[in-house]
Amino acid sequence: MSDSKDTNLSWGGRFSEPTDEFVARFTASVDFDQRMAMQDIQGSMAHAAMLSSVGVLSEDELQSIKTGLTEIVTDIENGTFQWSLALEDVHMNIEAALTSQIGVTGKKLHTGRSRNDQVATDIRLWLREEIDVIARELTRLQQGILQLAEKEADTIMPGFTHLQTAQPVTFGHHLMAWFEMLERDYSRLQDCRKRLNQSPLGAAALAGTTYPINRHMTAELLGFDGPTRNSLDSVSDRDFGIEFCAFASLLLIHLSRASEELVLWTSAQFNFIELPDRFCTGSSIMPQKKNPDVPELVRGKTGRVNGHLVALLMLMKSQPLAYNKDNQEDKEPLFDTADTVRDCLRAFADMVPAIEAKKDNMREAARRGFSTATDLADYLVRKGIAFRDSHEIVGKSVAYGIANNRDLSDMSLQELQQFSDVIGQDVFDVLTLEGSVAARNHIGGTAPEQVRQAIADAKERLAQRG
Amino acid sequence: MSDSKDTNLSWGGRFSEPTDEFVARFTASVDFDQRMAMQDIQGSMAHAAMLSSVGVLSEDELQSIKTGLTEIVTDIENGTFQWSLALEDVHMNIEAALTSQIGVTGKKLHTGRSRNDQVATDIRLWLREEIDVIARELTRLQQGILQLAEKEADTIMPGFTHLQTAQPVTFGHHLMAWFEMLERDYSRLQDCRKRLNQSPLGAAALAGTTYPINRHMTAELLGFDGPTRNSLDSVSDRDFGIEFCAFASLLLIHLSRASEELVLWTSAQFNFIELPDRFCTGSSIMPQKKNPDVPELVRGKTGRVNGHLVALLMLMKSQPLAYNKDNQEDKEPLFDTADTVRDCLRAFADMVPAIEAKKDNMREAARRGFSTATDLADYLVRKGIAFRDSHEIVGKSVAYGIANNRDLSDMSLQELQQFSDVIGQDVFDVLTLEGSVAARNHIGGTAPEQVRQAIADAKERLAQRG
Amino acid sequence: MSDSKDTNLSWGGRFSEPTDEFVARFTASVDFDQRMAMQDIQGSMAHAAMLSSVGVLSEDELQSIKTGLTEIVTDIENGTFQWSLALEDVHMNIEAALTSQIGVTGKKLHTGRSRNDQVATDIRLWLREEIDVIARELTRLQQGILQLAEKEADTIMPGFTHLQTAQPVTFGHHLMAWFEMLERDYSRLQDCRKRLNQSPLGAAALAGTTYPINRHMTAELLGFDGPTRNSLDSVSDRDFGIEFCAFASLLLIHLSRASEELVLWTSAQFNFIELPDRFCTGSSIMPQKKNPDVPELVRGKTGRVNGHLVALLMLMKSQPLAYNKDNQEDKEPLFDTADTVRDCLRAFADMVPAIEAKKDNMREAARRGFSTATDLADYLVRKGIAFRDSHEIVGKSVAYGIANNRDLSDMSLQELQQFSDVIGQDVFDVLTLEGSVAARNHIGGTAPEQVRQAIADAKERLAQRG
Amino acid sequence: MSDSKDTNLSWGGRFSEPTDEFVARFTASVDFDQRMAMQDIQGSMAHAAMLSSVGVLSEDELQSIKTGLTEIVTDIENGTFQWSLALEDVHMNIEAALTSQIGVTGKKLHTGRSRNDQVATDIRLWLREEIDVIARELTRLQQGILQLAEKEADTIMPGFTHLQTAQPVTFGHHLMAWFEMLERDYSRLQDCRKRLNQSPLGAAALAGTTYPINRHMTAELLGFDGPTRNSLDSVSDRDFGIEFCAFASLLLIHLSRASEELVLWTSAQFNFIELPDRFCTGSSIMPQKKNPDVPELVRGKTGRVNGHLVALLMLMKSQPLAYNKDNQEDKEPLFDTADTVRDCLRAFADMVPAIEAKKDNMREAARRGFSTATDLADYLVRKGIAFRDSHEIVGKSVAYGIANNRDLSDMSLQELQQFSDVIGQDVFDVLTLEGSVAARNHIGGTAPEQVRQAIADAKERLAQRG
Repeated sequence: MSDSKDTNLSWGGRFSEPTDEFVARFTASVDFDQRMAMQDIQGSMAHAAMLSSVGVLSEDELQSIKTGLTEIVTDIENGTFQWSLALEDVHMNIEAALTSQIGVTGKKLHTGRSRNDQVATDIRLWLREEIDVIARELTRLQQGILQLAEKEADTIMPGFTHLQTAQPVTFGHHLMAWFEMLERDYSRLQDCRKRLNQSPLGAAALAGTTYPINRHMTAELLGFDGPTRNSLDSVSDRDFGIEFCAFASLLLIHLSRASEELVLWTSAQFNFIELPDRFCTGSSIMPQKKNPDVPELVRGKTGRVNGHLVALLMLMKSQPLAYNKDNQEDKEPLFDTADTVRDCLRAFADMVPAIEAKKDNMREAARRGFSTATDLADYLVRKGIAFRDSHEIVGKSVAYGIANNRDLSDMSLQELQQFSDVIGQDVFDVLTLEGSVAARNHIGGTAPEQVRQAIADAKERLAQRG
Repeated sequence: MSDSKDTNLSWGGRFSEPTDEFVARFTASVDFDQRMAMQDIQGSMAHAAMLSSVGVLSEDELQSIKTGLTEIVTDIENGTFQWSLALEDVHMNIEAALTSQIGVTGKKLHTGRSRNDQVATDIRLWLREEIDVIARELTRLQQGILQLAEKEADTIMPGFTHLQTAQPVTFGHHLMAWFEMLERDYSRLQDCRKRLNQSPLGAAALAGTTYPINRHMTAELLGFDGPTRNSLDSVSDRDFGIEFCAFASLLLIHLSRASEELVLWTSAQFNFIELPDRFCTGSSIMPQKKNPDVPELVRGKTGRVNGHLVALLMLMKSQPLAYNKDNQEDKEPLFDTADTVRDCLRAFADMVPAIEAKKDNMREAARRGFSTATDLADYLVRKGIAFRDSHEIVGKSVAYGIANNRDLSDMSLQELQQFSDVIGQDVFDVLTLEGSVAARNHIGGTAPEQVRQAIADAKERLAQRG
Repeated sequence: MSDSKDTNLSWGGRFSEPTDEFVARFTASVDFDQRMAMQDIQGSMAHAAMLSSVGVLSEDELQSIKTGLTEIVTDIENGTFQWSLALEDVHMNIEAALTSQIGVTGKKLHTGRSRNDQVATDIRLWLREEIDVIARELTRLQQGILQLAEKEADTIMPGFTHLQTAQPVTFGHHLMAWFEMLERDYSRLQDCRKRLNQSPLGAAALAGTTYPINRHMTAELLGFDGPTRNSLDSVSDRDFGIEFCAFASLLLIHLSRASEELVLWTSAQFNFIELPDRFCTGSSIMPQKKNPDVPELVRGKTGRVNGHLVALLMLMKSQPLAYNKDNQEDKEPLFDTADTVRDCLRAFADMVPAIEAKKDNMREAARRGFSTATDLADYLVRKGIAFRDSHEIVGKSVAYGIANNRDLSDMSLQELQQFSDVIGQDVFDVLTLEGSVAARNHIGGTAPEQVRQAIADAKERLAQRG
Repeated sequence: MSDSKDTNLSWGGRFSEPTDEFVARFTASVDFDQRMAMQDIQGSMAHAAMLSSVGVLSEDELQSIKTGLTEIVTDIENGTFQWSLALEDVHMNIEAALTSQIGVTGKKLHTGRSRNDQVATDIRLWLREEIDVIARELTRLQQGILQLAEKEADTIMPGFTHLQTAQPVTFGHHLMAWFEMLERDYSRLQDCRKRLNQSPLGAAALAGTTYPINRHMTAELLGFDGPTRNSLDSVSDRDFGIEFCAFASLLLIHLSRASEELVLWTSAQFNFIELPDRFCTGSSIMPQKKNPDVPELVRGKTGRVNGHLVALLMLMKSQPLAYNKDNQEDKEPLFDTADTVRDCLRAFADMVPAIEAKKDNMREAARRGFSTATDLADYLVRKGIAFRDSHEIVGKSVAYGIANNRDLSDMSLQELQQFSDVIGQDVFDVLTLEGSVAARNHIGGTAPEQVRQAIADAKERLAQRG
């Protein structure tokens, strides 16, 4: 990156001494905002077309600008574009290159706009693209979950509360809980996209412009739903970035929960699943180790993304209108959030369908731990005992089971009857794992029948995403 | 609050020693979750009606439960209900009271549900009510802004970027920037409401229940759009609380920005507005002080609400499914966030329409500070000079003005012409404040005509809220 | 709490209308700052003594004030003090009560101070007391850890990295890792105390006072190390609160890590420890459950405390000097942080020494999972093979073991020799668990000898706390 | 960066399929942890010297390793070192290069250590260096403040509370408030350094090592105060990074407060100071603008640094011992925090001494706004009126002054006497600005005499930093 200080800056006329060299570096943004170069040019193309349509630029000038910008696109794509730190930011770099190519007409491009509305436009265009990519990866992950859930719709595992064995559930049912979390995340992402898709172009520095601009035209050319409604707000609003980071934070929280479970399930103690070797790494000192790096790393990245959310919220706190230099700090957290979200989703979308359930281990874990105690309580209620009383009866049976190291289904009828004489031979039907899960047969319940229905519904919803 | 230890807990059967007294206090939630008592009873009423409709409760039992619960409502409203710490939480307190009133039938109410789906239902019902109250206060604040903006649609003040005088804007236009921020907040609030309005009742502990429940019926009775789709997710999901806190955090960020401006504007240095005495307080030591306490305090509460968002995010990080005791910590941040938001909105909604603009001071501030420099630059462009060159010319004029302590509009034609000979007598039209603002006459621009249009549009949007 | 509006406020002279009733409630702090009443009186006692010593108050006036304040202490302790919302805060409530008791002399107490330095003094006094209580609870928890570690210094369990079995360690060694975390927390707490222990009294509103005050005297009377050095800083500094919350956040992070482990270890899958029933609760629907509520709840409270840290940081961001009303928001997060920390420490200090290790389960878990693979690698190195090569050899042995479902120590010499012919009969010495842990015999290592030494050192450090 | 997949990884023996290509990129850290290359080599040098001293390496092997590592240092410094993504991290990259240079001896370097203790050592070494650089910049900024404070020790400006004119202070006094904040930050930084300066080397993977290592020797060679005391804690502790980020967050909060004031003071409304052009930038559209970019940007970076603190706290929440892959996420926030802190301090240290006070404007602002009202109140007290009554009297005088647009010092004796007949001619002595500030003549007060004393004390403290 060039650094020469004699470059003409966009605002030098009023100044009596050049910017301090360190200050120039400290305040420049081109090393990170060049990432929005294509969006900047896209915005300039639309702005130029509009200026021409309202007579501010001639047709020739428009063509010249278009040609110049197209060449710059090529240079950037080829990596031959010379970025200059002295030119501060992506906007001035591109404008300077344009002017050096096509002469004075290049200087006319900035008519009726300011870097304030320009950067607001660029970020929104950039983020909109990222959102669409992320939406696709999120859908792919949800598809992967459905694929695995379908395969494991009947697989019985222990359901946990407080990480204690609670009741048997099916693995497919558990996976569909993940699906539902992500479904809400997807919905939040689309709401965020909807709200950001307004064009700030034309707000100029803060108050609009005296040129006869057509904001509807630029909005339409750039695929926005329409122009924003207030110029001061347009240049100072960063809600869209914060809302995106809030979406991302919650998504990562969800992935951290799934990651935690994957880490638990691959431990020797749970041993519920196998992650293919290609998603794991080993140890430099302990040759036997196979570490679930992908879920661990995703779990770790939760902090990173949540930190960016806090950064952006704190950034905006107490800022008076309209644009302040503080806002330059909006980009890096946003860029890194989008990158992190995309990578985490990709890693999960690749990995989830490759998870192998160790069905025997899951089943054995469900069998132990009195997981059908609730079923016994429900059985007693059906025999006419009030729920709270039946709970007490089962509690005592469990205490007996613990003392004698025997699960409920391992006890004899006689043993069970010492706790309540309404217990009959039919009790053993409800104490089986299959009986237990099949009995929870209502919408949202863990019965395999319901899980398959939930999967079918989910597929339909995904299909409608278009 | 009673504290007796011999109360029957809901889960004692399996335990060989009573809970440690400090632990009982440490883990109890009734001192704060009693706030959801009405929602808890509302949920129980619906659950009982459903149980009766599917034959789990008889009609008599249902009537008995309804009567009992209605009496409890009265006791709570009268402040005569005896809350007991030993009964842990709001759910057990109410159920114990019910059973003590109507006997064994009271114990049947808990059939087919668990505290896990019960509390998930209660919080959603509670938050939905809060959201509706907050939506009304938000609308009231927006109405107050419109009222003031209408009054001040022509009032000229300096627009700032970097807190430096930038261009003249109207005060009404500035206020409409606040309106737009709040409009997005309102939209986010409604999206949050939409997503939370699903009924978790019937998810039971985590897997659903073996009773023949009708989740659609309870959902409908409670005003939910429908039942949730996965039982594990239903008892462990706290997205709605986090999304609400994210809404609240951004809202408070917006209020902090408006507050910052109000504090600035009431300072002796700006002196742009007067806040009525009733919204201010004084000093115990400095008799002359009149402090803008309300905006300061609202600004201060920004940290509080953002802190609660972080608290909830961190709470959920890495939690394995399904319900864990950690989740008990979801309520206090949520309660305090709703209270804080409601109070801040109320204070602002009362205060904003009472703001008095000191029009002369605003105008004088706009007149100074070369605020029409951009207009001069635009003028030069219209005379055929490229924008970047005209910027340079104006920069030099400003430097001359600073050196000679003269604003652009104070200079003679001759003085102005030393910077460019295209400048003619008509330049003085664009150097006036009225000319400057009127010229920004496009959607979102600061021209009074546009501001009035924006206000009219905004009124229509508010009218449609119903 | 009384609410009458005709009370004389401390600043009314300049105001033409009374405070809005809602605003009065919104801006009042007495409902929470009354918690500092004793510190407020303590500060007033010292201030009065100083004023008397420099001749601003007569000896009679001083006695009168002391008598009045002492009576107020009694009223507060007896719960008979009438707090009034209209009097805004704890300071005005106490002063008004004093004046009503002793007449005009009460009004003289505020000479040479302001509520700004008064509240800054009160919070520091309050926090200093809390810190000392917390330090004692922290020490008690560390003692409890030492007690358990001593008992389990030889108990072998698997050490984990990535939650995968890594190498055998002793349970005592693992517990001493907790001790070390808390040791740093203790050190941070003391550093925080040291920095806060400066007296802001005398800074008055912001600039000091014209009375001939003696700040060294009040500092000494209140147990401060000396007066603060700058009056503007003294009334606007809240570093001490933030630093305390940073201490608390890290402490809770540490407790969350220990809690996570306790939750894991009490799961059916790990089954490493038993928590006594008195630290657990059960389920309203699943009679067999015994939930590790205390660690779960402590883990959940991590978010709460970290949220308060963020709240205070955001509160102070961008505040211009000196005191702003925003700062009223410093108290509630601080109060709740101190309460939460104290309760969590108390719960842990009670619980930790009561943890029962299930030694057989721990040992069996360590025996499986190739936990001595590193020992085999080290053995090979001692036989002359480069570390990286020996790692490769062991990796292949483990792959063979997995394929044949056999741990390293279960293989025959012949089997082992297929991977390297340097392996001899002596290999079985290093493949035992006892051999493995005993061999890590250097400072910080897991050898029981080292663990006992570490415990002895730790006891000495605790003994020096005085 | 090379990316070839056939490189030998450090842990491949047990694995049956290669790492997925995307996963390899996703989990690799070399693109950022190469920043610690010099510290990694420094640690390896010390480790090798120790291994040789205890007989694990021969003298020849040690020399060979030293030579190899020294060549690698040269390659890195020259930019000719080939970093490979396939080698995951900085540690494996350097070890592979060493082995390729010196053969099998290179593989012996890893004897008795693991990447877990290696990376823990590297980060501490790296952060210790950064802390020392930051301490120097912080000192330089404090020196700059003293320089300006000395120049402006008598300059009178309004002191604000609630951003309302409160009492006159001197600019030097105000600056010394900044100094005090930074003094506490410096103290926290040194406490952080003290706590981190322990050597984790020798903790190996988690449990220590079976080699006869000498941890005291490596600690000493690396300048640590001693070895850490527990191996599990050593590889999982990231307190030092969190504590550093907590220091940094509070520092940035302080800089944000100073920045806010600089932004206010350079506004046209305050107009208290001039920032030299070299620390400001202009506008691309508004030629008259001179924006205080440096303070704005520093204020904006507050969010970034606070976000990193939250990221690290959330990262560690609920992590079971010992090392988890999550911890790889500790580096980037830490690196960026150190960079940001250093740059912000540098920018401030350059800028602060160049601030030019506009003394006339400051004085005029202090003269207006009834800033000596407290002095009048104190005067009345000295004449025998109780403070609260004198406050009331002055309040009425101010109300009169506002109504008649006259400051207290502008009123005639007769006018003043209508509020209290104890007022005499001598009142005008206390109503002057000089009289007001000079009267606050106690430690920490704003009297120029006290400010000079505070500066002298501060210089002495800085001189002792060594």
